[in-house]
Amino acid sequence: MENTNVKPGLLLVVSGPSGVGKGTIDGLLLKKHENMVLSVSCTTRGPRPGEIDGVHYSFISQERFEEMIREDAFLEYMHVFGMNYYGTPAEPVFRQMAEGKDVLLEIDVQGAMRVKEKYPQAVLVFIAPPSLEELRNRLVGRGTETPEAIEKRLNTVRAELQRLKDYDYMVLNDTVEQAVERMEAILTAEKCKVNNNLNLAETLMKE
Amino acid sequence: MENTNVKPGLLLVVSGPSGVGKGTIDGLLLKKHENMVLSVSCTTRGPRPGEIDGVHYSFISQERFEEMIREDAFLEYMHVFGMNYYGTPAEPVFRQMAEGKDVLLEIDVQGAMRVKEKYPQAVLVFIAPPSLEELRNRLVGRGTETPEAIEKRLNTVRAELQRLKDYDYMVLNDTVEQAVERMEAILTAEKCKVNNNLNLAETLMKE
Repeated sequence: MENTNVKPGLLLVVSGPSGVGKGTIDGLLLKKHENMVLSVSCTTRGPRPGEIDGVHYSFISQERFEEMIREDAFLEYMHVFGMNYYGTPAEPVFRQMAEGKDVLLEIDVQGAMRVKEKYPQAVLVFIAPPSLEELRNRLVGRGTETPEAIEKRLNTVRAELQRLKDYDYMVLNDTVEQAVERMEAILTAEKCKVNNNLNLAETLMKE
Repeated sequence: MENTNVKPGLLLVVSGPSGVGKGTIDGLLLKKHENMVLSVSCTTRGPRPGEIDGVHYSFISQERFEEMIREDAFLEYMHVFGMNYYGTPAEPVFRQMAEGKDVLLEIDVQGAMRVKEKYPQAVLVFIAPPSLEELRNRLVGRGTETPEAIEKRLNTVRAELQRLKDYDYMVLNDTVEQAVERMEAILTAEKCKVNNNLNLAETLMKE
């Protein structure tokens, strides 16, 4: 009997515009799937009130961050001159995947592209709003940004959509429930991909 | 608002060894999904008792079949010298897909390969037993074949598994419910593939 528990997990990379509902979708996915963990980023900035080291971020020094860059220890990292560093450490991602866990990584389009370059088997999902009008309404509803800032965000979305063809999947967030179902279907389908089952086929053939 | 109803359907090609439970899985899928139709093959053999023209097969003459071959009207066809012809007519498949229906085509490994060659967007699923031992038990349980015939079938399965890498997905039929769920997940995920959503992205960008 094949023990499917030892099958390595997947790396699910999720991007999408501000206000599209990524956080809600990812939260529900993590809640429903015990086997799924969220990737924790490293940063050189200090913790904000309520932020816990190792949960929200791994807070590390600039020296350590730069050392990790030299060690090629990041799946991707970002540094704007004079600003803080942000990065996805590779070791915890690959370790948890080897343990059979699916790792969820929420990241912007540029970051997603860098991850795919380093680890082409990553499954890239872009969460899209049903319409830009709908997204505008959600952002207006939040009441945290000026109309100009919102229009700027919408232009960013249009630019991000140009990179859509580099993603594997586009999940429409018309309702959160449907979006979560689609994410779950993607996970299940990816696990059924032939490339993820060649060992099992090998076992069958040798029987 | 995007009308997702006009989105073209998928061609789902399902293969798997005798006794693996393809028929049960396909039957449940068709029952649960009104939007899914079964592809009806053409054959030159006569109908058996209970077989209805246009439901089980389209029964056509050898002349008409050969004419259709010359017209390149088949997605795939098979002809063993001196035997009857069997083929999948392309027109009903593509017409129904254009109407937004998902078309299910149950076919052997060789047929599946020919379909993929003609229509690379076809989604190829191989249904696999949890073990060959389990498959042997099922075939023995049917009581319709000699032990030698069953061993011959199992060797065919081993040979078919060699072609697995040309499939997109492998669905393990450990329980029918789980296998059907996996098939449904594959359908949902395929519909989320970026290549199947570029029109929607285009619409969003132009908004």
